Amino acid sequence: MRYRHPDRDQIRIDGVLSALGHPVRLAAVRVLDGGGERNCGSVLAELDINAKSTMTHHWRVLREGGVIFQEPSGRENLVTLRRDDLDARYPGLLDAILAGARTDTSAI
Amino acid sequence: MRYRHPDRDQIRIDGVLSALGHPVRLAAVRVLDGGGERNCGSVLAELDINAKSTMTHHWRVLREGGVIFQEPSGRENLVTLRRDDLDARYPGLLDAILAGARTDTSAI
Repeated sequence: MRYRHPDRDQIRIDGVLSALGHPVRLAAVRVLDGGGERNCGSVLAELDINAKSTMTHHWRVLREGGVIFQEPSGRENLVTLRRDDLDARYPGLLDAILAGARTDTSAI
Repeated sequence: MRYRHPDRDQIRIDGVLSALGHPVRLAAVRVLDGGGERNCGSVLAELDINAKSTMTHHWRVLREGGVIFQEPSGRENLVTLRRDDLDARYPGLLDAILAGARTDTSAI
């Protein structure tokens, strides 16, 4: 089964913001910003998350918001940050959000 | 009754993003970005929103997320965008979001 993704011009700012407006999803995107394709399991491991079913929901929100690509690969799912699409549609947005997440983290 | 607001350093990026990740709240913030203090009723009128009770919820989410100040004034409430606080804490974020909202609007 392949997942459906919005095209670049179907992405909406409120969908992106609500997708990223959750600490777990924002943390996942920070991991993905490291670059390249990751399998979901390795991101969960890096985030120290055990609840795979909850994360399935979070991946869906990120995917439907246009923030990530998610593709099945064997028994795993591969996820990639849609940085090119987001940067093209909303210049500066993702960088400002990721910088903001670092601000919060360093303040704790 | 005065409302409670997070201090600037209590604002969190996921709270800001989830507050702005809703079309009505984002539209309200675009109105407030016009500058100065507005009464809630005039913002509702500008947005053509009749459901005052629903908007009470939206104002609360924006206020608790650190996006607006809301203060009672007689029988009304005055609302102001916390642009200085947001710009200081998350440089470029609000501008990128508002520009993104304009991108979406112009694409419809």
